[in-house]
Amino acid sequence: MSDHLSSLKLTFLPAGRSITISAGTTILEAAREAGIHINSSCGGSGLCGKCRVRIESGEFSEEGSPRLSQKERQEGIHLACRTRISSNAEVRIAAEAGIISGGLTTGIKERRKASLYTFDIASLQKAGVFRPPVEKLFIELPRPGAHDNMADAGRLLASLASQYDEHGLIISLAVLRKLRRVLREDDFRVTVTIARPVRIGGRSYILNIQPGNWTRRNYGMVFDIGTTTVYGQIIDLASGEVLAEEGEYNGQIAYGEDVISRMIQAEKPGGLQMMGEVVCETMNRAIAAMQKKSGISREEISSLTVAGNTTMSHLFLELETDNIRRSPYVPVSTFLPPMRAADLGLDLQPHTVALVFPAVSSYVGGDIVAGVMGSGMYRDPEITLFLDIGTNAEIVIGNEEWLACAACSAGPAFEGGGITCGMRAGNGAISDFTVNPADLEPMNTTIGNKPVAGICGSGLLMIVAALFRHRIIGPDGKFNRELESHRLRAGENGFEFVLAFAEETGVDHDVVINEVDIDNFLRAKAAIFAGVVTLLEQVGLAIKDLDRVILAGAFGSFIDIDAAMTVGLLPPLDAEKVMYVGNGPLMGGRMNELSNHIRMEVVEAVNRMTSFELSEVPNFKDNYLAALFLPHTDRSIFPPDP
Amino acid sequence: MSDHLSSLKLTFLPAGRSITISAGTTILEAAREAGIHINSSCGGSGLCGKCRVRIESGEFSEEGSPRLSQKERQEGIHLACRTRISSNAEVRIAAEAGIISGGLTTGIKERRKASLYTFDIASLQKAGVFRPPVEKLFIELPRPGAHDNMADAGRLLASLASQYDEHGLIISLAVLRKLRRVLREDDFRVTVTIARPVRIGGRSYILNIQPGNWTRRNYGMVFDIGTTTVYGQIIDLASGEVLAEEGEYNGQIAYGEDVISRMIQAEKPGGLQMMGEVVCETMNRAIAAMQKKSGISREEISSLTVAGNTTMSHLFLELETDNIRRSPYVPVSTFLPPMRAADLGLDLQPHTVALVFPAVSSYVGGDIVAGVMGSGMYRDPEITLFLDIGTNAEIVIGNEEWLACAACSAGPAFEGGGITCGMRAGNGAISDFTVNPADLEPMNTTIGNKPVAGICGSGLLMIVAALFRHRIIGPDGKFNRELESHRLRAGENGFEFVLAFAEETGVDHDVVINEVDIDNFLRAKAAIFAGVVTLLEQVGLAIKDLDRVILAGAFGSFIDIDAAMTVGLLPPLDAEKVMYVGNGPLMGGRMNELSNHIRMEVVEAVNRMTSFELSEVPNFKDNYLAALFLPHTDRSIFPPDP
Repeated sequence: MSDHLSSLKLTFLPAGRSITISAGTTILEAAREAGIHINSSCGGSGLCGKCRVRIESGEFSEEGSPRLSQKERQEGIHLACRTRISSNAEVRIAAEAGIISGGLTTGIKERRKASLYTFDIASLQKAGVFRPPVEKLFIELPRPGAHDNMADAGRLLASLASQYDEHGLIISLAVLRKLRRVLREDDFRVTVTIARPVRIGGRSYILNIQPGNWTRRNYGMVFDIGTTTVYGQIIDLASGEVLAEEGEYNGQIAYGEDVISRMIQAEKPGGLQMMGEVVCETMNRAIAAMQKKSGISREEISSLTVAGNTTMSHLFLELETDNIRRSPYVPVSTFLPPMRAADLGLDLQPHTVALVFPAVSSYVGGDIVAGVMGSGMYRDPEITLFLDIGTNAEIVIGNEEWLACAACSAGPAFEGGGITCGMRAGNGAISDFTVNPADLEPMNTTIGNKPVAGICGSGLLMIVAALFRHRIIGPDGKFNRELESHRLRAGENGFEFVLAFAEETGVDHDVVINEVDIDNFLRAKAAIFAGVVTLLEQVGLAIKDLDRVILAGAFGSFIDIDAAMTVGLLPPLDAEKVMYVGNGPLMGGRMNELSNHIRMEVVEAVNRMTSFELSEVPNFKDNYLAALFLPHTDRSIFPPDP
Repeated sequence: MSDHLSSLKLTFLPAGRSITISAGTTILEAAREAGIHINSSCGGSGLCGKCRVRIESGEFSEEGSPRLSQKERQEGIHLACRTRISSNAEVRIAAEAGIISGGLTTGIKERRKASLYTFDIASLQKAGVFRPPVEKLFIELPRPGAHDNMADAGRLLASLASQYDEHGLIISLAVLRKLRRVLREDDFRVTVTIARPVRIGGRSYILNIQPGNWTRRNYGMVFDIGTTTVYGQIIDLASGEVLAEEGEYNGQIAYGEDVISRMIQAEKPGGLQMMGEVVCETMNRAIAAMQKKSGISREEISSLTVAGNTTMSHLFLELETDNIRRSPYVPVSTFLPPMRAADLGLDLQPHTVALVFPAVSSYVGGDIVAGVMGSGMYRDPEITLFLDIGTNAEIVIGNEEWLACAACSAGPAFEGGGITCGMRAGNGAISDFTVNPADLEPMNTTIGNKPVAGICGSGLLMIVAALFRHRIIGPDGKFNRELESHRLRAGENGFEFVLAFAEETGVDHDVVINEVDIDNFLRAKAAIFAGVVTLLEQVGLAIKDLDRVILAGAFGSFIDIDAAMTVGLLPPLDAEKVMYVGNGPLMGGRMNELSNHIRMEVVEAVNRMTSFELSEVPNFKDNYLAALFLPHTDRSIFPPDP
């Protein structure tokens, strides 16, 4: 029955557009997905009472709608944000909720997000590269006797050579110390954990030895150390499955939200060690939680892959970051040797090896490399733009033959910073927006359907795109002062648009967007787009040569690609050419844990990745100025709508 | 003046034999060197008063000689053991001190010891292999700039590649952690400490980095971990010089004198760790003492080479020895990876690398390998017998093309064990001996010229050889019962010879050698000789094929080669074909510290060294029985004296 109900058809009238939704979806959510505008300035929290619809047919459930009169209720009027559909239904949007003559008002088609690039174990298997960098081999040794008293270590190595063609293995002191006992515990039947080299011709290491056959219990961990959050996974290295996941706020947040404040902290006496210890504590909490969830013991974790931006990787390893933040931005190291996880302060066994993703430069870090790896762009013939948007935007362009990368500072606008009513992507943040060009009434969607509290990065993008699309702002980002609306007014920072009046919000003031905010947004998107154009120019190409775009990072997964193209943040490509990798570092880390072949390829790819310092390229400033308009001054790149 | 006096000519009358001696030598010592017998049963301590000589010309000084009468003094009679010569002199041996008609009595020529094989730095230099496994290179890096912001680590590696042709270097986390600071401390001029691989095609490691040029201050340490004593040296890796030495008793002695008791101790709970800690404490005391002597700081010690027998190496590394002492005698490992000295419990810096000599088997250990290395026999065309005599005798035979080795248990006779009046080589131990065949009066020489206390290993050899040479004992080791002397009598354990009567000793009993003692000696020498013969047979050779003998160990450095050949302990070769390496482990260790080329050669040599288990060879017992006679039953090996 629930199966039957789980896929419902909801038709919006008068437009007649239908959408397939899951049972329990609110009408407002459904409208948003369908590209239907319904006025709702409070963010879908029931406060403003504007999203009135009449349910013409179908079943539904409703939370209290105090804003509706007795008469309205009798007429079948409901608030779209408080009403959940439980059968196929028809809904007519009330005039006051945004209907203008002819029907649809948003002017956009169905909402389009980049399609998710998914990681495919089957393809690894098919390509014959599903062979983890840390493997377990079961082996039965000949027993020693009067005519064969070779040493235990030599016996093991000789057997690995003859039975598995493994040569030149290095045994650690820790393994030697338990070798005698382990060999004899199950009559010379043992499981050997072997770590592969990342270089051709390198030597493999014996990390551990266990009595009996434990080849089916070989587990790895992956960590994405983000500036804000740390995500971990436990991976079954035999099947490739993710067995447990955990996310924690990076404990370093107590010392500042951005990488710069972390680096300043690290330069204080004892600060570097403290920053290292704090992030290890965060990781250790995640390790404990994942072990509890999965029932996998520390002894069974053979390897760990860590991906993070260059600053996060440095702080984790307690490498000095002083020159990462000072021109000419020199990190201590981009390549990092395999290490013992326990030496780094992690609650893991001495035999667990830690692999840290290589970086390209101070500002194109292991997180980006992991994403590039996860996306596979380094082995495709298509010319791909890989874009991770945050305070810094990291840009990688290339294909199987060449790779170029750069980073540019976009400023904090995409994280809600420097915006009058900006906020991080949390409850109450406007994350989606359309506007009714007839009366300038907004349809605000907030995270958690909570009363409006501010604007987050993806909301800012949607707002600017909608205002521009309906010519409420011009190409220069200034409001059309000829429009008349109680929502449009002169404020302290130029003209402003009231997204939600104080009484429609969860805060004690009007939530607005003003011309200074829009200007900040333009600077951010111009920096990114100029970065892309400049990097392309450095390799003799132009926007038109791009075959594909891959978005990474949290912002990339939320981004509306039509909006991004409308404002000129992304180049105008067919929507199906735009993809996103969800958590690039985790995906890349998982591939690293499962395929030593890919791990070797990535080192090779990083070696041939050319890093450009955009601030050193004279053209960058021109490209930046050209991109400070909506969508761009160069209409050959962004042709005007027909 | 002292130079003039330092080399004097002393002539013994009536024989007329002269010897060149140093000023201050006693007449008794000079006689011993010259092969002149003078009765002196108290060991040269002035107690017996038998060593009467008349000084016919020359200057001398004399300690009190209470045994001499007033009349004797007036006649120019002195005790040879109490009189030191200070000019050229002539000395007539009194009749009662041993003269028999015709003159010399010992029947031997001048005392002959094996010549010392010395370690030759010049030859390493000449061969172009004086290149330590741990080198320091000075390098000046290009400074980073706007157009060159390569990471510190990459910059260092690229410069090492371009300036020194060093490729594929591995940087440790510890080096990365200080890299940024060190590079900038002296404006990108740094000294890099590089550890070379022992395998061709292996990768070098960067162990340390220092600001400025420190290439002239690069030091290594060598340790010989013996069962009884631990010797250390500090080596200047630039010049090859030994800058300080130190010896300490191995602290493990508190847990038993031999390797077996140490192994038993190590099998108790916590025993292995304790044995490792105890020997590290001993080494740490030596390290502290050597650093004080040399003024070299811990930071400047780049590497450490350790040589010891297989048990000592295992206990030092805390590897289980349980199967070393149980058939089929399987050690944990013969090859040992490079380690961090600090990880092993040594008071050294984390950058100091510890190299442990490889072993061949449970009973042919790293000490033997180090000696073989030090002797260079593995690269000579001559077929060499390398022999280390102790409770166990280790035998290596071979040349540049092949090497075979074995160990056999000789029992403790050569260390004074199992001998009625046996003792370790300490003060008062008879270490040298001749006998006057006319009256059977002995000439005992003790260590320290102290009153006789017992017999040590080298003394036992000299006693048996002299008794046999003068037919006081027969080829079966039994006394000639037809001889009449107050020194020869029936005792509890068969016939015995009184070396010193109680009043001539520092102990409260007669010091004797009896037929059981001689039998024990025969068993020990037979085991060793049978080991040599059996090992030769295993490779299709015989005694006559030996070109050279190299003796190792303390016993080897004291041994009188004529005596050893007389009793059949050593095969009869020209004396100049017999050499000894003083402290083989220290010498080999020093070569290891100074030449990575030789280090690689040794690994290769150990790999081709065939180990034989003599107890498994049927012929061994026959060879042993044949060698139970003086010098041997096979007179084709030991032809009778002409």
